[in-house]
Amino acid sequence: MPNSQTQPSSLSRYLDGESWQFKDLLREDISGCELFQSSSYDLTLEQTRDLTEDRLRYLLQTPLLRQHLKDQVKGGKKGFLFKSIGIIEVVCSADMATGVKLGVVTGLYGGAIINLGSTEQKNSWYLPVTDLEFTGMFAMTERGHGSNVRGILMEATYDTTTQHFIIHTPCIDAQKMYIGNCMKGNYACVFAQLFINGENQGPHCFIVPIRDTHGVMYPGVTAIDMKHKEGLHGVDNGILIFDQVRIPRENLLNRFGRVSVEGVYSSPIQNKSCRFNAMLAALTPTRLGLTVQALAAMKLGLIIAVRYSHSRRQFGPKDAEEVPIICHQTQNFRLMPHLAAALALTFTTRFAAELLDQAILRDEDLGEARALQALMAGLKAYSTWQNLRCLQDCRECTGGMGFMMENRLSALKCDSDVFVTFEGDNMVMLQVVVRELMSQFRRQTGTDALGGFISNLTTHASHRLRTSFQSVRINECRFLLEALNFRERMLQQSLATRLYYKLQKNKEKFFDAWNSCLHHISSLGLAHIHRVTLEQFTLAVERCTDEEDKALLAKFCLLHGTSLIYQYREWYLEQNYLSPNTSKKIRTQLLELCRLVKYDALKVVSDFKVPSCCIQAPIAGVANHRAPWAFYPIPVPAHTTSPLHTHGPIGTSKL
Amino acid sequence: MPNSQTQPSSLSRYLDGESWQFKDLLREDISGCELFQSSSYDLTLEQTRDLTEDRLRYLLQTPLLRQHLKDQVKGGKKGFLFKSIGIIEVVCSADMATGVKLGVVTGLYGGAIINLGSTEQKNSWYLPVTDLEFTGMFAMTERGHGSNVRGILMEATYDTTTQHFIIHTPCIDAQKMYIGNCMKGNYACVFAQLFINGENQGPHCFIVPIRDTHGVMYPGVTAIDMKHKEGLHGVDNGILIFDQVRIPRENLLNRFGRVSVEGVYSSPIQNKSCRFNAMLAALTPTRLGLTVQALAAMKLGLIIAVRYSHSRRQFGPKDAEEVPIICHQTQNFRLMPHLAAALALTFTTRFAAELLDQAILRDEDLGEARALQALMAGLKAYSTWQNLRCLQDCRECTGGMGFMMENRLSALKCDSDVFVTFEGDNMVMLQVVVRELMSQFRRQTGTDALGGFISNLTTHASHRLRTSFQSVRINECRFLLEALNFRERMLQQSLATRLYYKLQKNKEKFFDAWNSCLHHISSLGLAHIHRVTLEQFTLAVERCTDEEDKALLAKFCLLHGTSLIYQYREWYLEQNYLSPNTSKKIRTQLLELCRLVKYDALKVVSDFKVPSCCIQAPIAGVANHRAPWAFYPIPVPAHTTSPLHTHGPIGTSKL
Repeated sequence: MPNSQTQPSSLSRYLDGESWQFKDLLREDISGCELFQSSSYDLTLEQTRDLTEDRLRYLLQTPLLRQHLKDQVKGGKKGFLFKSIGIIEVVCSADMATGVKLGVVTGLYGGAIINLGSTEQKNSWYLPVTDLEFTGMFAMTERGHGSNVRGILMEATYDTTTQHFIIHTPCIDAQKMYIGNCMKGNYACVFAQLFINGENQGPHCFIVPIRDTHGVMYPGVTAIDMKHKEGLHGVDNGILIFDQVRIPRENLLNRFGRVSVEGVYSSPIQNKSCRFNAMLAALTPTRLGLTVQALAAMKLGLIIAVRYSHSRRQFGPKDAEEVPIICHQTQNFRLMPHLAAALALTFTTRFAAELLDQAILRDEDLGEARALQALMAGLKAYSTWQNLRCLQDCRECTGGMGFMMENRLSALKCDSDVFVTFEGDNMVMLQVVVRELMSQFRRQTGTDALGGFISNLTTHASHRLRTSFQSVRINECRFLLEALNFRERMLQQSLATRLYYKLQKNKEKFFDAWNSCLHHISSLGLAHIHRVTLEQFTLAVERCTDEEDKALLAKFCLLHGTSLIYQYREWYLEQNYLSPNTSKKIRTQLLELCRLVKYDALKVVSDFKVPSCCIQAPIAGVANHRAPWAFYPIPVPAHTTSPLHTHGPIGTSKL
Repeated sequence: MPNSQTQPSSLSRYLDGESWQFKDLLREDISGCELFQSSSYDLTLEQTRDLTEDRLRYLLQTPLLRQHLKDQVKGGKKGFLFKSIGIIEVVCSADMATGVKLGVVTGLYGGAIINLGSTEQKNSWYLPVTDLEFTGMFAMTERGHGSNVRGILMEATYDTTTQHFIIHTPCIDAQKMYIGNCMKGNYACVFAQLFINGENQGPHCFIVPIRDTHGVMYPGVTAIDMKHKEGLHGVDNGILIFDQVRIPRENLLNRFGRVSVEGVYSSPIQNKSCRFNAMLAALTPTRLGLTVQALAAMKLGLIIAVRYSHSRRQFGPKDAEEVPIICHQTQNFRLMPHLAAALALTFTTRFAAELLDQAILRDEDLGEARALQALMAGLKAYSTWQNLRCLQDCRECTGGMGFMMENRLSALKCDSDVFVTFEGDNMVMLQVVVRELMSQFRRQTGTDALGGFISNLTTHASHRLRTSFQSVRINECRFLLEALNFRERMLQQSLATRLYYKLQKNKEKFFDAWNSCLHHISSLGLAHIHRVTLEQFTLAVERCTDEEDKALLAKFCLLHGTSLIYQYREWYLEQNYLSPNTSKKIRTQLLELCRLVKYDALKVVSDFKVPSCCIQAPIAGVANHRAPWAFYPIPVPAHTTSPLHTHGPIGTSKL
């Protein structure tokens, strides 16, 4: 039974946001489609890929998605991005591989053409995708260059005599690798160094035909199947090799660079590096998509683990019934912070989508919107790591049952594992965040941290930032937020100081100086995004109009903030920002909050509103004839929700 | 080419320990066997299981293993356990599923018969296994009871008239679940509540025939295939259901309980709970086996990730060659502590094996050897979690290549994921450790923490324990060890105090009091085993006779200790054991050590001496025709090893 037939609760609508009706319709489409009624873990690789292709085609022809892609081609419709992330979330809940493949075809291939191409180019190479005439792929990463994508080696040489670009793979390291939809797609957006008369104009994006609609390869094109991966079996990743492949001059996506018939190059952006940045900005929405994919996986994992933890009983008081395992302190302590983080990410993702939507509406150059890019990059790193930790805890908290494929957690883990390194390795993403924070810092202080610099800045600013936190109002989100803010600012200032000394005083090379601060940099990148998530969660609580929902969300918001401070309490102790005693109270508060919200958790996961054909897991109450032994009915909340003791017996722990 | 043909280095011999020659012979067997020359990730479930079965049979018929199993039946041979863990490590390196299945047949099924059976029983039901006549399985876990195994529901009722036990599954929760070798094995060691004349004598172990050697099931026995799991695809896990299955009286393994013809029960142990403990003690060596399995996986993961990190280049100084990714601070910071932990576990495992070997030689009641059991349980929890973290970092540090099945890391992760919850969930294992620590505490203080108790004990003892640590000799292992010791003792004392107040003053029920301390308990359990690993690593450094090896190991030992203190620096700060400044120095020292040992790492992973047919990964230099694109040659150390700056520029960091 599709979920949408039941009246959505106020909380589920709030969590789904303004596109809740759109998401419900899509959930109905998926729940009603035979292709999504069973999981695919027992199929062969080829069968899984075919099923994924069928699922993709089914989705692309639904009126909902057709209209959405037509809107994408037209561009500039308000709320477009909300619908996009709604689609990604719902489709990824149903099948991660289908979601990723949809992302490749519409977000990466489509996104590149939409962002880098002219109207004619959109009409030629993307509009037909919306009519299921063909599909495409996105070829940026090479064997030799994944993270450091500026170093790609693929060549596109303009031949003035025939007015062709010659696309060529000069060496093994220039092979395009990990290309999704490689074994089935028809066209590829290929990034290559553009050479005209021997001069390199930097990387540009070209449309290269790969195979016709009957699957016949174009001359000079080789696609090697990379076959078996840890997960995402439905995505056909491969290697693309081009041997002097000729494509017409019109196949250069020409928004940021064009070549005249005579071979004269022109671009609205003169600096090569800025030009490539502008092109890479086309990836920005995709990064948000990855956050949504990770969020979809987290929600699924939590639905399954929370429900089973309420159904499954083990151990208990002497001579009495065993207790649900959620009652074990370590069990709720492991799961509840993830649930709080999932909620925080829900609201933060929406905030990011809103910013991006506005930027696109205003037709801003996303390459210039560096703050926005930093937000997306940070969110991508935090969410994808958080998801893996969440799923791992979900698996462990469901014991042997969680290891059985029927219960979905294992496949979710394997499918989403690659998110932390693909489309921007997380370590690189955090550096993107910090580069922006460093330039913000320069703007704010009016000084160039890497040039002239006030050396006593750290002392100066840390006093300004220090708050009344030590008055131990740790049970108020406002104080936790101040603490996160303090951490971010301090890490930012101390990094600026360190880099200043290394570069200016010690005359280290930039690469060496930066590299020797990489641990600091990644800490700062995460600190930034942590602060944003708590900020957005706090705002979401404030804006919630339903009093009961608001009270429930407030508990999880406090839990999220407490958990973030708890994770970095050693840093606060080092800074004397927390006293040893307050640090202990933070732990006690966290344990207490996890204990308190464990019954509320059942309502929250239910309000994620994931259709049962997507949940699949018998231990979460979805019967499966293949594993009747794994079935546990959906638990009914046995206790009423506990009120939040804002001034509870905190600090009595002696640990 | 089998590794053993090359002369082993002194370090590799030291790492392999006294059974190094035995291990080399087994490595040669495996390297020479066609069955182990390729990985199995592209086979169907049935094909994988058949291959695993073939590999198991091949191993069982090697002279090395045949002799070893005969020794097992005879019992009491010195060094038996060293060989056992050598076998587990080498076989698990080759294929985790084969290792687990070998463990089921010889460690669990065989171990139960050896430990719980009479000479005749060993001869009837285990000796034939060593001649490949049949195999067995071990049926303890039930659907309703996994962790809380005392609560199993399977029934064995003695029928005096026919002198049979009637083995029966009374309800769905009593079904035996996750049973390895369930679809192929012939006999099962089944744990069931023994009923005689309506009286329950507690759980006992019975030999129940499952299927004959032609695969025909015995009447009343049902085996349900559980099929697809996250990993260990070669292990055929299933469910056993018995419908009034009659077995002869002789099928009760009778060391700890026997039933006369007339139905009179007798046992050398009167207390039912103690009796069951004694039986469970048969599992003790198996837990050590799990640690070795985890260690085998860690070593493989590290070989692959360390080699690729030295081969793969990405980013670098402007206008210069890109640097090997191991040079990125975050990369060596993520990998090196795992390598140090793997070394620590190598020596700690050997220490545990020695203790266990001695206990078995002295024919000690392992049920009574609680300190030993606590050590095994703690080691199991720490090593299996550490392994998962290690493999995850290895996967992430190898990027997209790590996600490809050819490169082995993914399968290792999936195969060893279940180790953290099976054969004793890690959270339960830590409670086993702490129960022992609490009773030690009672013995040491001469008071019953849960009875009469000196309430100011914590203050008293913490002064005694506090050391001169604050004099900042953090670059000496002795000081780090003192710190770990302090943490363990303090957590032990504070737990005793907390439990005392909860039980004696607040009159809480034991279950509630214990449960409300569960986070504290798991911290203590880990603190205990952390201390032991550093202790053993330090001893191993001291005992090393080769000066170069000793110097190298000393660096990793210091790294391991620094890493452990770093992980818990918030606790030391809370206790005022570390000053904020010292805490920062710990981080600087850790970063510096990771940077320093990164070239030594190549030697260490090479000295793990894993045959290339076990490494498999092309990114680690093992060519694979299925994935030529993934090949990177084995890196040659480009730099000499760096000396350890024991008084280096520590404390200049401003993070």
